[in-house]
Amino acid sequence: MQSPQTAVNSTVSSYLLGRFMELGVRHLFGVPGDYILDFLDDVISSRLAWIGTCNELNAGYAADGYARLNGMGVAVVTYGVGGFSALNAVAGAYAEGVPLVLVSGAPHTKRRSAGEMMHHIVADYDRQFDIFRKVTIDAVQLLDPETAPDMIDRALSSCIRYKLPVYLELPADLAHASCSPPAGMLRIEKPVSDPENLGLCLRDAAGLLNAASNPVILAGIEVLRFGLGDDLLALVEQAEIPFATMMGSKCVLPELHPQFIGIYQGSWSRPEVQKQVESSDCLLSLGLWMTDINTGAFSMNLDVDRMIRVADKTVKIGARCYENIVLKDIIRGIVSLLRTRSYLDTHPSVPFFSIGNYVPDATARLTAASLYKALDDFLDDRKIMMAEPGDSYLAALDFNLQEPENFIVQSHYSSIGFCTPASLGVALARPEKRPVVLTGDGAFQMTMQEVSTLMRWHCPAVLVIVNNEGYLAERMLHQDGIYNDIQMWRYADIPAVFNSGGQGIGLRAETEREFHDALAIAEQNPDKLILIEACIGKMDCSERLRQLGTSLRQG
Amino acid sequence: MQSPQTAVNSTVSSYLLGRFMELGVRHLFGVPGDYILDFLDDVISSRLAWIGTCNELNAGYAADGYARLNGMGVAVVTYGVGGFSALNAVAGAYAEGVPLVLVSGAPHTKRRSAGEMMHHIVADYDRQFDIFRKVTIDAVQLLDPETAPDMIDRALSSCIRYKLPVYLELPADLAHASCSPPAGMLRIEKPVSDPENLGLCLRDAAGLLNAASNPVILAGIEVLRFGLGDDLLALVEQAEIPFATMMGSKCVLPELHPQFIGIYQGSWSRPEVQKQVESSDCLLSLGLWMTDINTGAFSMNLDVDRMIRVADKTVKIGARCYENIVLKDIIRGIVSLLRTRSYLDTHPSVPFFSIGNYVPDATARLTAASLYKALDDFLDDRKIMMAEPGDSYLAALDFNLQEPENFIVQSHYSSIGFCTPASLGVALARPEKRPVVLTGDGAFQMTMQEVSTLMRWHCPAVLVIVNNEGYLAERMLHQDGIYNDIQMWRYADIPAVFNSGGQGIGLRAETEREFHDALAIAEQNPDKLILIEACIGKMDCSERLRQLGTSLRQG
Repeated sequence: MQSPQTAVNSTVSSYLLGRFMELGVRHLFGVPGDYILDFLDDVISSRLAWIGTCNELNAGYAADGYARLNGMGVAVVTYGVGGFSALNAVAGAYAEGVPLVLVSGAPHTKRRSAGEMMHHIVADYDRQFDIFRKVTIDAVQLLDPETAPDMIDRALSSCIRYKLPVYLELPADLAHASCSPPAGMLRIEKPVSDPENLGLCLRDAAGLLNAASNPVILAGIEVLRFGLGDDLLALVEQAEIPFATMMGSKCVLPELHPQFIGIYQGSWSRPEVQKQVESSDCLLSLGLWMTDINTGAFSMNLDVDRMIRVADKTVKIGARCYENIVLKDIIRGIVSLLRTRSYLDTHPSVPFFSIGNYVPDATARLTAASLYKALDDFLDDRKIMMAEPGDSYLAALDFNLQEPENFIVQSHYSSIGFCTPASLGVALARPEKRPVVLTGDGAFQMTMQEVSTLMRWHCPAVLVIVNNEGYLAERMLHQDGIYNDIQMWRYADIPAVFNSGGQGIGLRAETEREFHDALAIAEQNPDKLILIEACIGKMDCSERLRQLGTSLRQG
Repeated sequence: MQSPQTAVNSTVSSYLLGRFMELGVRHLFGVPGDYILDFLDDVISSRLAWIGTCNELNAGYAADGYARLNGMGVAVVTYGVGGFSALNAVAGAYAEGVPLVLVSGAPHTKRRSAGEMMHHIVADYDRQFDIFRKVTIDAVQLLDPETAPDMIDRALSSCIRYKLPVYLELPADLAHASCSPPAGMLRIEKPVSDPENLGLCLRDAAGLLNAASNPVILAGIEVLRFGLGDDLLALVEQAEIPFATMMGSKCVLPELHPQFIGIYQGSWSRPEVQKQVESSDCLLSLGLWMTDINTGAFSMNLDVDRMIRVADKTVKIGARCYENIVLKDIIRGIVSLLRTRSYLDTHPSVPFFSIGNYVPDATARLTAASLYKALDDFLDDRKIMMAEPGDSYLAALDFNLQEPENFIVQSHYSSIGFCTPASLGVALARPEKRPVVLTGDGAFQMTMQEVSTLMRWHCPAVLVIVNNEGYLAERMLHQDGIYNDIQMWRYADIPAVFNSGGQGIGLRAETEREFHDALAIAEQNPDKLILIEACIGKMDCSERLRQLGTSLRQG
């Protein structure tokens, strides 16, 4: 609640900043520009930290990384050149289900009324708004201080409720315009289940699960997105039902758990995972996203007659459909209805991953396999693994991660270049943890200037740049062509060129030993940015990518 | 014309590449991605050069720079992550009037028909198309090889006719799909004037100009955009009418010409320019864009009763209006109707710029004034000056340039970070000339990875990075704030970190002498990329920016 004194003095700026603070936002990412400077003046005199990035796309990526851990992330840009530069980050958040807020400045409303062609404008005063409406759950133009508070509340509430991005357009003169103060905390409408349908559905679902001899739970991306990992863990442990996850929901449940089967992805799965999931006589699927990446290119072989499918607002049990049911209510409600099994008695835990036993060969050149093995050993619960789409992501699937928030990837949207700027947001959202970025050289080159920003704001990320001379995933998934070649950089010199002032350390590894030592230096310097250029062969990659390439090239 | 043999074997890919070659395109800029690889296979086996950039925004900027000189520029990207990353460049081309073509890959049409959620897709298969329709003059989805040739022709024709960007979406399977061969050269519908209206208008306009005692011609951006500089030069020289240009049309007519008055920008003009333009008893304005930047923030004081205003399709003489008239027809048609004056007899040429006389003070620290003076002297007709929006642009207004193509700026859209990648396109479009980029440190940081690409493709750009510790224009146009500070880099080390292999030279100048010497090194190394970090004081800037800041801060 605002105190009466501040309440009397509300401006659109202070109203918006107050809401951000109330919702747990502590950092804003962005780039200044003349139409947003009045707002930024208020930002830097507030308790929020202003995190300047090198460009707007990277601000958007940083805010996305922040939002995934913090529940909301905010990027602030100027009009036109700023907004459109950030569009790909907002589109990515929309595709991935991330609660990102984009605040864009705009020309003074009197310019708008006069229709004057101010710099940065494309065609007219609604063009940017019209475009952002297509990649957000809500978009508002704050043109009137009278209506601004309600519009801000509406947009922010939608952002949190749906875990999707929103767009706020703030003309230069509106920032300091007086408006009514907040009337209490932001009201966020929460989705509720139809009680009758829910009761019926829970009874039917529990009956089937209790009667089944080999039930399996398949945890999809909605479980991760809506933060239901803990609830689901309680369910699987109480009922002792084994579970699998998917590529987009990796480690929403702990991967060293004795009931963990593995990551199910249709015919791309390991055979024993595929067998156990597809032969289940009652498969409870929770919030799946049926994308090509999650489904092994639509190669799932699941019998809907043996499934309980909980999706957005609807549950399907075989041919029966139950409307207006929220995922959370199923997960929480079914626990008390399920009988306890003795799965663990009959399935003694056999971890299929080997951990902590990697010993570098002192003379061997670094390979993809040894690099990934060493990195897996390097990870622990205080590190957040961020994998760039491509071989980094595929390799990281086999890393052993225990906490939902410890793995971040743009699974579906797959915009390479995301991880380096996003690690800025991750580091600031979780200062007690350390982001570890695994990225290809081509992906790194896209957004590499934010290494500077990471050092500037003292973020101790560990960046592992796999130097394999270009776009490896393209080489493997299609015939190779010169378009996959890139300029070879001296990556290890990058912290110095950005003037790290001792805040960054650049290292280069060509052998197993050198990579092992580089990771040791990272451990010895927990407060510094560590950039490791890891050199492997041009066509070296994970076994997963090699298999995928073979299968895709065959059609 | 295609030979019969190739004609028989047309695919959508070869059709499109054939049109590009026919239209004078020799280089394509872009980033690979799986949905566009089949097309890229054809690109690299064609006579077109593939110029890979570090990211898609920069590919778009490079293609924009190329298009400004070449009549068309093409950027090629993958779907979603690629298209949306390039949006700001396309929006900029739309705002600026640049014939840029964006080719975006897309998932296989059978995926589209099945509605399958493939990676990179945001929401649905039309979202990207719907967005690009808003920032292009034409956008097409090539979903059927039957209709693809006509759609390609329609889009490319619009691109050239209107000098505006277009969007071509090419699903992965369409690239190699057979289609009908080109039926002759691309037909580009040209705008034509209504002959009767034109005749009347020319007679009325010539009458007024001939009767006037101090006529002036004001050449706007449309003269530059439609390449009418030579025609207009013939007109002004034959009639001996003095002329002024505008910020967005700088040097569309030669700036050392004895009839050149200066750059008119309302109350921001030099007093003698403002006086001569505003007191003219017959002002012929040709293709003005009434933007804030061109008009000195709408401070023009022109009496429409004493003007002949030639704008898009319409001419206005006082209160009279003449419809359906093309700018070119006025410029070419009026020459023979005008009496010859003796302006030069009564206005002996007094160049108001001083050229070629800059001598560095051996001990003085570099200042904005001495930096700009030295750079002005460095320029000649074989160099293309590219000024980043901000103080670089304002300072460059006073440089003496003789050819329309020798000055490139994003005048209206003003997206900082544009110039470094755009210089790649400029260098490849005009290998006989050399791009000289003047950019601020904040702008440079946005897109700096393309220094690598410049070296990779042996483009001998001269990049002058003004290190003044952040976003100078923001500091001057508004009260300063910490959001204008940036990380201080070792700019001169950047060519080495990108592994120039001797192709790039990085230099740092803190004194007048050092900057002078750096430019001398650039002259001595005409085939190399030269990056000069030019250090000046934090609040040092051109006189124009200082005045502008004072006037804007006063409201």
